[in-house]
Amino acid sequence: MNPTVNKQHDNIRAVEWRDEGVRLIDQRLLPQSLEYITAENAAAVARAIHDMVVRGAPAIGVAAAYGVALAARDSYRRDGQRWREYIEAEMTNLAQARPTAINLNWALQRMRRLFPGIQGDPFAPLLEEARRIHDEDIAANYRMGELGAGLIDQHCAVLTHCNTGSLATGGFGTALGVIRTAYAAGRISDVFASETRPWLQGARLTAWELIQDGIPVSLIAEGAVGYLLNQGRVRWVIVGADRIAANGDVANKIGTYNAAVVARYHGVRLMVVAPTSTIDMAIDSGTQIPIERRAEEEVLSMSGRRIAAEGAGAWNPVFDVTPASLVDAIVTEKGVVLAPERSKLEALMADESS
Amino acid sequence: MNPTVNKQHDNIRAVEWRDEGVRLIDQRLLPQSLEYITAENAAAVARAIHDMVVRGAPAIGVAAAYGVALAARDSYRRDGQRWREYIEAEMTNLAQARPTAINLNWALQRMRRLFPGIQGDPFAPLLEEARRIHDEDIAANYRMGELGAGLIDQHCAVLTHCNTGSLATGGFGTALGVIRTAYAAGRISDVFASETRPWLQGARLTAWELIQDGIPVSLIAEGAVGYLLNQGRVRWVIVGADRIAANGDVANKIGTYNAAVVARYHGVRLMVVAPTSTIDMAIDSGTQIPIERRAEEEVLSMSGRRIAAEGAGAWNPVFDVTPASLVDAIVTEKGVVLAPERSKLEALMADESS
Repeated sequence: MNPTVNKQHDNIRAVEWRDEGVRLIDQRLLPQSLEYITAENAAAVARAIHDMVVRGAPAIGVAAAYGVALAARDSYRRDGQRWREYIEAEMTNLAQARPTAINLNWALQRMRRLFPGIQGDPFAPLLEEARRIHDEDIAANYRMGELGAGLIDQHCAVLTHCNTGSLATGGFGTALGVIRTAYAAGRISDVFASETRPWLQGARLTAWELIQDGIPVSLIAEGAVGYLLNQGRVRWVIVGADRIAANGDVANKIGTYNAAVVARYHGVRLMVVAPTSTIDMAIDSGTQIPIERRAEEEVLSMSGRRIAAEGAGAWNPVFDVTPASLVDAIVTEKGVVLAPERSKLEALMADESS
Repeated sequence: MNPTVNKQHDNIRAVEWRDEGVRLIDQRLLPQSLEYITAENAAAVARAIHDMVVRGAPAIGVAAAYGVALAARDSYRRDGQRWREYIEAEMTNLAQARPTAINLNWALQRMRRLFPGIQGDPFAPLLEEARRIHDEDIAANYRMGELGAGLIDQHCAVLTHCNTGSLATGGFGTALGVIRTAYAAGRISDVFASETRPWLQGARLTAWELIQDGIPVSLIAEGAVGYLLNQGRVRWVIVGADRIAANGDVANKIGTYNAAVVARYHGVRLMVVAPTSTIDMAIDSGTQIPIERRAEEEVLSMSGRRIAAEGAGAWNPVFDVTPASLVDAIVTEKGVVLAPERSKLEALMADESS
């Protein structure tokens, strides 16, 4: 327990623009090794998203925005008149890098809105827009941190799942931003983090971030979620989201739905923290959210080493959908939605004042 | 999908008596390597139980019974008159090897019942009793397999947790025995097995056993239990037990309670399969069952390799308690108890006819 709280999260940038391209922390290597990959074109950005060099819905969105700027630069170099045609294949490639998180598409659409008004070389204005998306995401995270921490009305333990911190966002974090803010405000006694198989984002990334901030963390196997909540100390499960449907259904890392069911059974509340870029008003409910399945090998192995018996198969959906009825609060940068339902999300999204 | 069902479980013996002592499969090395450790005295048996060379409540009981025979042999060699005194320290040592599974104590008590009547060298009669315990456990497993399979009244998928097969018992298995029997009878469409962190008994041991029997198995991360049961194909969660209290509360591998809560939420039934040696009528409820906590390192590492960020802690209870109210059936070799409660378990245990 380090008495000095070092806010190292200010120094962690999963995604960062450099002169030569998008510099990404290779999150597959953490915490053993902090290494960077620089994607110098849109195809490299798409590959990095697909291969999980960068992950976390908001971070993917920011990376994709920079990817569009790179795609525009290269398309313009190829043909200064027809860059809007040439960029389409790269936009499609970026959009298909991963299916579940909507922030990716949200970022592409927002970048695309600038295309018609651009005169001449599109690189500078698009890079500027990507930087704005990045800055806004960080600001949104700090705002959500305050709003979410305000919901924690008694000193208690919390449980989080997967990684939703600086590594998963433009910076600071969604659910982890709430935990950082609430911990600093003295509202959290203990942070439990599920290790989050198969990629171990909890054990590898969330623990790494919290320890750098001097926040003690206890990891648990996901099988222990039920027994932990049964102990009565955890009052909130706090998670991020990869896509939120118009009715408030939440797609997030596999294990979220399990935790939501168990939380409700024990009277523990579930807080979903996500910027409005995660909300997809174009779909009515979670059943329409595409759930990515990844290779069986991810479950059968751990950090590249085979753990399961030869011949075993695996079922590896990497997200699940938690129905709105199990969600107590959705925290966005525009405000908090309690007991989410369509009318409340419509009102939130229509509010341009915030 | 191997059309030929090879019943290799007949050849797997986690515990086996050999002239030189108790031969144990070193289950820590499976499935990469099938190696044996021979415990030539009671202290070595206790150490093997503590270190999880052998695990699984019934297998621990069988190993401990052989351990008593070894302890008696050595105590008698030390002093032919006072072996009953000398053996006490070894009995205590065996009893303390692991706290949660009651089969260990059950076996010690059953062996102890012979002590007063023994004339001269106790080794032969005690070895005979240990062999009887072993044989009875195997017979009980086959009986439970039939009884449990009889409960599966529609062709469906099942989910099991941890390892409850030949490796966890005298042979054949408890929950896995039911799955073997029901699969052979054509009542099971798909077997899902949770990988069972932190020791990965599902991925390493259950998958290994099922594949040898030609039964296809799909592993899942434990976080996926909720989402899997939400799909509607799984109708039964089938698990073993380490101790069952007089009121029907069940202590079993961490993750069981989580699965039980989620199963009830989805209308999926929970079957607990355990010999009556697992039932502890001396305690009223699950709150009195000691829950073993093991080293944090087990969660922070995987197969001896560090996975978590440096500085992270872990909460590592290795069992949990599922209240009787969440259990649909307890299957024992003496019969099936539906909706378990004290009066039903008392009647079961009082019935000497079976």
